[in-house]
Parts: sequence; C-alpha cells; structure tokens
Amino acid sequence: QTSHRDLNEPLIDHIEGQLFLNETFKIIVEEVLRKGTDVKEKVCEWKEPEELALLLDLELRATGEPQHSLLQRVKDVAKYSVKTSHPRFYNQQFAGVDYHSLAGRFLTEALNTNLFTYEVAPAFVLMESEVLRGLRQMVGWTEGDGIFCPGGSTSNIYAMNLARYRFFPEVKSQGLWGLPRLTIFTSPESHYSVKKGAAFLGLGTDNVILVKVDDGGHMIPRDLDEKIMLAKSQGAVPFLVSCTAGTTVQGAFDPLDLIAGVCEKHKLWMHIDAAWGGSVLFSKQHRQLMKGADRADSVAWNPHKMLVAGLQCSVLLLRDTTNLLKQCHSANATYLFQQDKFYDVNLDIGDKSMQCSRKVDCLKLWLMWKAVGSDGLAERVDRAFIHVRYLVEQMKKREGFHLLSEPEFVNVCFWYIPPSLRGKEGNADYQERLAKVAPIIKERMVKQGTMMVGYQPLGNRVNFFRVIVFSPLVSQKDMDFFLDEIERLGNDL
Amino acid sequence: QTSHRDLNEPLIDHIEGQLFLNETFKIIVEEVLRKGTDVKEKVCEWKEPEELALLLDLELRATGEPQHSLLQRVKDVAKYSVKTSHPRFYNQQFAGVDYHSLAGRFLTEALNTNLFTYEVAPAFVLMESEVLRGLRQMVGWTEGDGIFCPGGSTSNIYAMNLARYRFFPEVKSQGLWGLPRLTIFTSPESHYSVKKGAAFLGLGTDNVILVKVDDGGHMIPRDLDEKIMLAKSQGAVPFLVSCTAGTTVQGAFDPLDLIAGVCEKHKLWMHIDAAWGGSVLFSKQHRQLMKGADRADSVAWNPHKMLVAGLQCSVLLLRDTTNLLKQCHSANATYLFQQDKFYDVNLDIGDKSMQCSRKVDCLKLWLMWKAVGSDGLAERVDRAFIHVRYLVEQMKKREGFHLLSEPEFVNVCFWYIPPSLRGKEGNADYQERLAKVAPIIKERMVKQGTMMVGYQPLGNRVNFFRVIVFSPLVSQKDMDFFLDEIERLGNDL
Ligand SMILES: Cc1ncc(COP(=O)(O)O)c(C=O)c1O
Ligand SMILES: Cc1ncc(COP(=O)(O)O)c(C=O)c1O
Repeated sequence: QTSHRDLNEPLIDHIEGQLFLNETFKIIVEEVLRKGTDVKEKVCEWKEPEELALLLDLELRATGEPQHSLLQRVKDVAKYSVKTSHPRFYNQQFAGVDYHSLAGRFLTEALNTNLFTYEVAPAFVLMESEVLRGLRQMVGWTEGDGIFCPGGSTSNIYAMNLARYRFFPEVKSQGLWGLPRLTIFTSPESHYSVKKGAAFLGLGTDNVILVKVDDGGHMIPRDLDEKIMLAKSQGAVPFLVSCTAGTTVQGAFDPLDLIAGVCEKHKLWMHIDAAWGGSVLFSKQHRQLMKGADRADSVAWNPHKMLVAGLQCSVLLLRDTTNLLKQCHSANATYLFQQDKFYDVNLDIGDKSMQCSRKVDCLKLWLMWKAVGSDGLAERVDRAFIHVRYLVEQMKKREGFHLLSEPEFVNVCFWYIPPSLRGKEGNADYQERLAKVAPIIKERMVKQGTMMVGYQPLGNRVNFFRVIVFSPLVSQKDMDFFLDEIERLGNDL
Repeated sequence: QTSHRDLNEPLIDHIEGQLFLNETFKIIVEEVLRKGTDVKEKVCEWKEPEELALLLDLELRATGEPQHSLLQRVKDVAKYSVKTSHPRFYNQQFAGVDYHSLAGRFLTEALNTNLFTYEVAPAFVLMESEVLRGLRQMVGWTEGDGIFCPGGSTSNIYAMNLARYRFFPEVKSQGLWGLPRLTIFTSPESHYSVKKGAAFLGLGTDNVILVKVDDGGHMIPRDLDEKIMLAKSQGAVPFLVSCTAGTTVQGAFDPLDLIAGVCEKHKLWMHIDAAWGGSVLFSKQHRQLMKGADRADSVAWNPHKMLVAGLQCSVLLLRDTTNLLKQCHSANATYLFQQDKFYDVNLDIGDKSMQCSRKVDCLKLWLMWKAVGSDGLAERVDRAFIHVRYLVEQMKKREGFHLLSEPEFVNVCFWYIPPSLRGKEGNADYQERLAKVAPIIKERMVKQGTMMVGYQPLGNRVNFFRVIVFSPLVSQKDMDFFLDEIERLGNDL
C-alpha cells in the first residue's frame, strides 16, 4: 500500500542518479576516450560469446542491483566493447571520434525529444533545416528538400519510394496492383540496401536490374542505356537509377555526369547513394569525383561515416521543391499535426517521415561543423586522401602486398601474399590458398587486439582486405604500423 | 602544404576536446537535468521561429568558432529546447528521465558502434538478445525472435512485411505483381503508421480496412470477422490484423483474446501494436489488459515511451522460431557477413534488419532494468495508474472538466468547459466554441512555459485535451497543479 506521502515523492532519486551519471562519465572519459584512443592499448578484447555472456552477467532479474555493481557493469561493457575510435580500427566505414559531435550527442540524449513538431523541438526543427540547406549547397542546389533518416539504407529506400510516387501517385492509396512492372537500375557493386528496399517496397529484387561495371567497379553508362531499353522492350517500366558515389568495397564513384545524361534521356529518377562518398563534396580538391551530382533528383549521404558525426547521421537530400516528401509520406494524423496551432504548421515536419518518433541527428553534425567550419571538414577529407596515398606508396614498396586496383577514394583493397605463396600464381590451388589468408590474419589480429580491418571476396576475386582510412585520429605512423602488422600476422602462412 | 611532422599529428586535440566535453557535461547536468526537472523552472521557453533562428546563430560557415562561443551554443540549445523530462511535460508519450538509462545512452554514444556483427559489437549482440528474451517472456513466450527498430512505426511496418512474406515468400524476389490484392485490418484509432506502412510497402492505404470501434475506442471483433469475410467475397486476400494495445489518443486496449480467435479462424497474422501499452505487461495488477497477447504472431513495444528508456527504444517481438526475420530481410552481403569467420556467424544479426547501420538501443534499457529490476519497472507502471486515478477523481470534483470516457490506461481525455460555456450544451455554436478552447489554453501555456499537454479532435468529437501521466518524476501535487493550471489558463474563455 502506497502512502499519501509516497505519492508526493518522485520514484527517481535525482542526487543518486546524478552521482551515477557522473561516475559513468568518468568511466567513459577514461576507458573509452583516453584508453580507447591510445595506440598502446588494445582495439578489442576478444572473448568467446559464452564467456562474455558470463562476464557481463546479462540476466535481467526481478530486483535491482546496487550502484557499485552497476558501475562495474558499465566498466565491463566499456572494456569488452570494440574501441571504434581507436586509430587502428579500420574495420568499418565509421571510426574515430570528434569531441564536439560527441558533446552534441550527449546533449541530444539528455534533451530526449523528437523531431516531429516545432512545439517539442523548436531548436532542432530549425537546425535540421539549416544543416540540410548546408549539405544541399555542397551538392550544388540552392533549393530543395531533405530529411534525416535512421541510416543510409533508409535514405536509399526513401528515394525509391519517392521516385515511385512521383511517377505513379496512385500507388499510395491503391498499391502496386494497378501498375505495370517497375524496374530499378543499379550496379552489382552498389550497396545491398537497394535490393533490400526493392523487396520491402513490394517491387521485388528481380526487378533490380544490375548494370555492368568496369574493372574499377564503375557503372558503365552505355550498358545502363541498353538495359533500360531492353527492360522497356520487355514491357517493364524503368523509373529509377541508383548510382553510387563511393562504393562500399572498392570506393568507386560511378560516372554521375554520364549517367545523368542517360536518366534525362529516359526521364528516370536519378538517385545517388553517396552514403559513403558524399563527404568529398567538402573538399575543393576531390569534389570533382562527384561531378554531375547536381543533376540528380536525390542524394543519400551519411555524415556518420567519413565526417565522424557519430552513429547515426544520414540524410536524404532532394532537388524537389514541390513538397513531394510530405505528399508521399503524410498520413495527416490529427493528434500530432493539428492544423489550428498558433504557429506556422509547416514547421511540424514529422509527416515527411515514415517514422513517427524521429531521433535528433542534426545537433551533433551542426556543432561539429560550427566548431571546425566547412574548411575544417575539408581538411579532414584531404588528409584522408594523403594518408591513403602514402599507404599505397608504401604497399608498392613491400613485396607481400598486391592491390586489387588503384584506389580512387579512401578504400584500399589488397591481398596480402604470404612468403609461401609468392611466385606461385600459376599453381592450381593458389586462389584457394590465397582465399584463406585474410580470414586467418583477421582471427589473429582480433584475438591479439592489435587492430581491426575487414576482408571479403568480390565477384571472382577471392578474399582480400579492405582497409579504410579517414579517421581524424590516424597519423602516418599508423599506416606504417598497419603494414608491419599485416606482415607480422601473416608471415608464416 | 602539409609537412611530414603534421601528418604524424592527429587532427583532433584530445585535451581540448575532453575539456569541451567536460564543460558540456556540466551544462547538461545544470540546465537539462537540474533546472529541467525543477517545477519552479519553465517547461519551455517559447520563441517565434525567426527570433529563435537568430538567437541560435544557426548558420554554418567556412571557419570554425572558438570553444567559448561553442559552449554558449550548447547553453542556448539547452535553454530553448523543451524540457521533456520536466514533471509538467504531458505533451507526448515520452517524458521524464531515468539516470541509469541516460548513463547507458552516453556510453552507447561514446562507444559508437553498430549492431550488425559480433565482431564490432560483441557485448551488444549478446545484450540485445537477452533483452529481447526478457521482453518476450513478459508477453508469455519462452522462445521466438525479435529486433530493435528505429521506432514503433518501423516495428509495425516490419510486422506487415514479415506477415506478407510468411504467406507469399515469392514477394521478396517478384514483388506484388503476381499476387492477389492483399488487405490489412485495423481500427480507425490505431496508429497512423499502419497506413504509412501500407503505402510504403506498396500495398496501398485503400487496402487497410478499418474495423469499427466501440465508444471507448476498442476494435469490435464481430465487425472484424464480418469485414474479413466481406473482403474475401470481393476477391481480396486478408493477411494481417493489426490490433492496438493502448491506442495513441484514448489509451484503449483492443480485446486481444477475442481478436486472436478471429485471426485463428481465418488464419491471419495477428500483430499487436503495443508500442504504447506494452509496458503494462510488467505490472501484475494491470497486465490483464493484454490478456491474449501470447496468441499473437508479433508484438511491437516501445520502452522509450512508458518505461522512460529514452528515444528511441522500440522492439518488434516475434513468436516465430523459423528465422523468418532473416529470411525475409536478408541480402547476404559478403563484405559484411562473411561466412568463413572464426566464430559462429549466427551472431552476425545484421541481416535481420532493413537497416545496415543500426544503433545500439538495448544498453540503456538493459542498464535501467538491471538497476531497478522488473519489480521496479512494475512499480512505475502501477504508480502511473494511481496518479491517473487520482487525477480523474479530482477532475470529477471540479465543475469545468468533462471526461471523454473513463480512462482504462494512463491517457486521460477531457474537455475543459470554461465558465462561459457551462450549461450551454444546447446552443447551436457550442461545439464550435468548445473546439476553440483547447488551442487557446495550449497557446497560453506554451507561451508562459508552465506546462505542456496535447489536444486533438477525434472523429466527431471536437478538440479535447489528452493528458498522459507516467513519468516517474511526477508526484500527486503535479496532478493538482495540472487542474489548477488548466482552470487558470481557461477561466476567462
Ligand atoms: C555505399 C553505401 N550505401 C549505403 C550504406 C548504408 O548506410 P547505413 O549503414 O547507414 O544504412 C553504406 C554502408 O553501410 C554504403 O557503403
Ligand atoms: C499506438 C502507437 N503505435 C505506434 C506508435 C509509433 O511509435 P514511434 O513514434 O516510435 O514510431 C505510437 C506513438 O508514437 C503509438 O501511440
């Protein structure tokens, strides 16, 4: 029985809570930010799943635990998590840390609001709009629209849905049944979200037509043109080309200007998946990789990748000025988007999204951008290219490294050929043996915790490493370390 | 020209960065957590958009700003943001703060990883699985599957996609063209994401068939049965019923047990949108509101709402044990989900999602649950019901408050009838004048910053307030304040 006095006490103890938060903050600074970025410390502390589950004492129980044991949990989670900010984490398209962004993320979490109405997110509605404007400007658009999405996959899928709606607005109410078979064009090296999206939107993965690429992984515009004509001749209706600016594995930039020509010829929606490569737009020196981007209808771009804005931070930018995003996605819920409010209800942007709750992902990018300026972000991009050039030069000087192709971005794809395989290219089992090298090196590196880098096969090319270099914490010495370490780990194979 | 020495220096200054983070942390504690939860301080600091844009100096420039002016920005963003943790914020289905959850969120942000492989998120892959297990257990399932999604809307839409795939697996590759017209059943008081999802998935909003509700907003099982038969007789193929446990406006729980019977009869997928109401499952006293939930195929549940886990935290729980989630959503990208890894690749759960990057949303819930236990979470739910009962009792004692219906959950829907309208129910312009009351009171309250509560019309019922009470920071005194304040703000209308 709860007494009357109790009901006037909140269930949360602010003093105790703030103390806990303070202690956690200290652990974060020490374990994640200081040790977690120190090259003398490990990138990861490998444990087998069964052991880790025990170490973390994951079980959820009926009664709570005292503060000191909770703090131990916090320490353990930090300890056994991968240090993605570490200068030797090259495993994914995110890495490093920016303190202004991180400060923005803490503030976002504390403010705990939703980007659906001006009423509950006045600062962020305006801020998101400003950040989108700034990013659109990089693309070369002085007007347009856009939205932050929970990741680049969602941004890509939104683009597909918008394109479909632009050509067939009746799809929103009637579904696909009345429509001809619709087809999408992309390259086999595009991100898998294009296929996922086609399945999700009810279009079907068979209706994603793969356009040939050249050796470097670039979509071939002539093949695109031919495939479009072929599809039409088979009764399908092409509506969208999803090209890629910075492919996931090779880092290739599709020839946007030429593709734009093909899209214009056939009146198709041109989408650019620049989730990975979009950040080159900040660099005066490298933005030409995306020449023609301004001719697209939509651009997906993930500042959580190369710009180190923190997961997640992804935008879909649109050239559209007809409010397509809202028309396509709106449901006009009256409980949230009342029309009789005392302010301009165009500021209630929530109906532009498929989401209802939508996280504030703009503050971290805005604060970081404010802190270093567009010039500072450009410097990071330029620096990444310099590190990559150095790494590639050094690779060429060493016997065991064989590049897949000359990198045009910050992905460096290479095989490490251990001494026992050198000069054996002619042997029947060469490819088979080479395929096993990267997985073994990877296992050793993770278990020792010295660095992390990914590998994969691609088409008929067996397992090779893809090292990605862009973290602002990386220095040239780390590039030397990288090569030495691969040699050390793979020398006996 | 960058010198060789420069290239060995990271672009980030750790000392300066950590100092900035420290200062931001102090601002968060003082402005957001201390003042932001103090009833003597304002809930919001209203500014017109033009003025606010200037105050925040939103513009993004080429050059960065010094630390002290960035800290001023942090303060300003905190100042002009709505204090959603404030005990007098009743505007949305999120409110309050839990310090353990917040600590988990800070740690999540600092660790900055992705929930797609065990390799980069060992602790979180195991933790997510454990949290899902714990939540499924509340539903009454000893096995099954599930995933954290970026919001309840996404969880609902996933359920629709999974149901479609279960019945017509060919949809993934071929799209909807070969299939008969599919229909979904839900009530008019269900969340708008059902319609958004139908549009997005290519099913079309016309194929969402609305089942009648009773006065309290509960779906009528007999009407459901009839509508299903009618749809079949018209050549459509019903495949999913989306019922709601805790509707957004009225907080109604659809009669799950009876609906389960109808779904079983017609062999349809039963989805429960328990985004809002799911948390009653923690309470021994109130879990009967969801009796029959274990008969469903899927349940969407948002711990970021009633459990105060922080935005966002939403799960889709599945009874399925056939790996449907993965089969339906997978794209088998070899660059991420290599099959020749040195650990059990079933731990690489990323292909279960439509997302590629997926935020870690489990840690905050796990840490909070660890801290207070299932019993502590149950206590919060029970307390919310007690506050609501008190609020309703007090309303009934006051002249100006008129309930829409007797609340069964923590939503209290009511009209405030100002003195000038009392006893005038017969007047021709009564409804029209009543409709204007809530918007005016709302404007006044926001401009004065004393509290925040939402209003909306529903069907033929004109604008009424929906006050939502569940924050663990709320005390009974706040309930009295709420009523006094509505009277103060609306007395002269
Ligand atoms: C080219 C490309 N597009 C899209 C994505 C997906 O972005 P996200 O992981 O944010 O969904 C990625 C990487 O993950 C990518 O490399
Ligand atoms: C019943 C119901 N379902 C779904 C949602 C959507 O959840 P989210 O806002 O996380 O998308 C809400 C509220 O927003 C809701 O009230």
